[in-house]
Amino acid sequence: MTTSNRPARNIGDLSTPAVLVDIDALEHNLATMSKRLPGALLRPHIKAHKSTALAELQRRYGHRNFTCATVREMIGMAHAGLSDDLLLANEVLDEERLAALSALQDRAMITIAVDSDATVDAAARAGIKHVLIDVNIGLARCGCAPSDAGRLAQRARAKGIIVRGVMGYEGHLMVAADRAVQLSDTLAAMDTLWAAGEAAGGDVISAGGTGNYDLHASHLATTGVTEVQAGSYVLMDTYYSTLGLPFRQALSILGTVVSSHDKWAVADVGLKSLGMDHGDPKIADHKVWFCSDEHITFATEKSAGAASRAPQPGVGSRVRIVPSHVDPTMAMHEYLWLVRGDEVLDRWPIDLRGW
Amino acid sequence: MTTSNRPARNIGDLSTPAVLVDIDALEHNLATMSKRLPGALLRPHIKAHKSTALAELQRRYGHRNFTCATVREMIGMAHAGLSDDLLLANEVLDEERLAALSALQDRAMITIAVDSDATVDAAARAGIKHVLIDVNIGLARCGCAPSDAGRLAQRARAKGIIVRGVMGYEGHLMVAADRAVQLSDTLAAMDTLWAAGEAAGGDVISAGGTGNYDLHASHLATTGVTEVQAGSYVLMDTYYSTLGLPFRQALSILGTVVSSHDKWAVADVGLKSLGMDHGDPKIADHKVWFCSDEHITFATEKSAGAASRAPQPGVGSRVRIVPSHVDPTMAMHEYLWLVRGDEVLDRWPIDLRGW
Repeated sequence: MTTSNRPARNIGDLSTPAVLVDIDALEHNLATMSKRLPGALLRPHIKAHKSTALAELQRRYGHRNFTCATVREMIGMAHAGLSDDLLLANEVLDEERLAALSALQDRAMITIAVDSDATVDAAARAGIKHVLIDVNIGLARCGCAPSDAGRLAQRARAKGIIVRGVMGYEGHLMVAADRAVQLSDTLAAMDTLWAAGEAAGGDVISAGGTGNYDLHASHLATTGVTEVQAGSYVLMDTYYSTLGLPFRQALSILGTVVSSHDKWAVADVGLKSLGMDHGDPKIADHKVWFCSDEHITFATEKSAGAASRAPQPGVGSRVRIVPSHVDPTMAMHEYLWLVRGDEVLDRWPIDLRGW
Repeated sequence: MTTSNRPARNIGDLSTPAVLVDIDALEHNLATMSKRLPGALLRPHIKAHKSTALAELQRRYGHRNFTCATVREMIGMAHAGLSDDLLLANEVLDEERLAALSALQDRAMITIAVDSDATVDAAARAGIKHVLIDVNIGLARCGCAPSDAGRLAQRARAKGIIVRGVMGYEGHLMVAADRAVQLSDTLAAMDTLWAAGEAAGGDVISAGGTGNYDLHASHLATTGVTEVQAGSYVLMDTYYSTLGLPFRQALSILGTVVSSHDKWAVADVGLKSLGMDHGDPKIADHKVWFCSDEHITFATEKSAGAASRAPQPGVGSRVRIVPSHVDPTMAMHEYLWLVRGDEVLDRWPIDLRGW
């Protein structure tokens, strides 16, 4: 891949906290996913990284259609020229934001999710040309009742909107103890989505995520799913890493040990630089005690058979911290550093933050 | 207080998620604290709000000395003219950042915390003129061993640095089931800090927080504490609200219901706009089910004696969500809206984000 002319530096030169993305793990993840779900079969969800530079790299792996979670992500992607086919997979009522999206339609293919009379009507008022009917397929969140999809599609068409099809997000099925159960539950959810799609019309059936992308990939012919919305596969986190997926941990947050004690050390990466909703992050070969606003307190682990605990890392040591949830972590930082091992290759802005 | 000439608007006009700060609750909190710990007895911790406009208001209530958690907060405060006496209550090794702080010393009184040879030496190399010796008084985080405070102070003075005194943060004592125990534990921690201060020299003894500010206020004469570092009292959160402190909830995040169902509703305030390390936020008269990246799923509560659950709020309804942790929540937003009830008075930037 091409990087800028910025001279290579070592991660030891970086100010911390710093988002590190390992280029080899990243490219492994992109290659693995694009092989299994090539081209339009994947609509990468860019909420997981919020970086147009990273989306640009995803496009080089063949994915030209993207999923967004916020209007600001949609606008940023369109302005970056990543505009072939942008889906806002969330409901929006905000007139100003819908107008901003509508104004982009001459330079970008814009589609938004709707799941109620109010969201259909708001889209129509703003002059939005394309929608997907968002169908609830089991997660207690957005999406119309499956039986209402046909009626909502009719309402949209009556207002001059093109209904491209349906989407659903089976978020409750991303992590399962038993893969056979996860498969049968996913297939049942897709039966529901397919039936709603038949009623709504259009040719798009969009669903899925990193946790079951492979189940989708193996059953596209029977489910009728036309595209998968995975996002976390690009960078990964400790939550998804338990699933045995073929993706590597590309993301870590680099910290500096600023205080070191007999029984613990403290680095300058705290809960203002880590998504915490999935719990504490991890540090290899160490036990994380707790996170404060600006700090993480951690300690060496006593190895089996060792007479005593290894000494704590000294003040000035660097430490890589692996977040438990990639999406909110990325949203807290202004840029990421692309690295190979300890070598710094480039700096990319995380330019799609906010709403 | 003075606000800009921006015409009053209603919160119904705001794009969401939006940080709301109720001016009456805010001024109550500022007045209550400034009565109990007037002037220099309080060194407000601005990491809790990251807004120079809010710090400016704190100064109007008599507090001219501030505590910061990051170098960027220090720089922003200095540039905003809130420069009488700025304490960075964290250890820093970063040479570039220390140089930036050092360069501010002609326009701002800058003091930083040190707790090791390495941090003393880094401060000296950067030309930092004033330090506090950070003393560990029980929380497993930063701070030197109390017995090491004198030696570190000597080392700093030998390098030409003025040691203004000591600080300690008894963060493990902010929340306690039994106030009598909290008091005796706080007093014991202050005994340790006082002894370290005797060894280190200087006239500052800085400690405490919102959870025990009143215990400090009542015992300054015996503890020798010269200033308290509270921050959360300004805006408050659900975590601190359980303590029976005389501060009101000034902060909420305004959301819009974007999807409504029989058993739940969904608003557009998710875990990318809420600090989640203290758990889910709260919504008055509703039960929060869970938060996703961009959404909160919640439901009406069945009142005692009621035959059935109240209907869910409809699409387009506004809802105020109270965060469980103020500090990381503020760090996720670009600005706050100052409101009185539903009337919007002003917009203030949250201008001290990042590191």
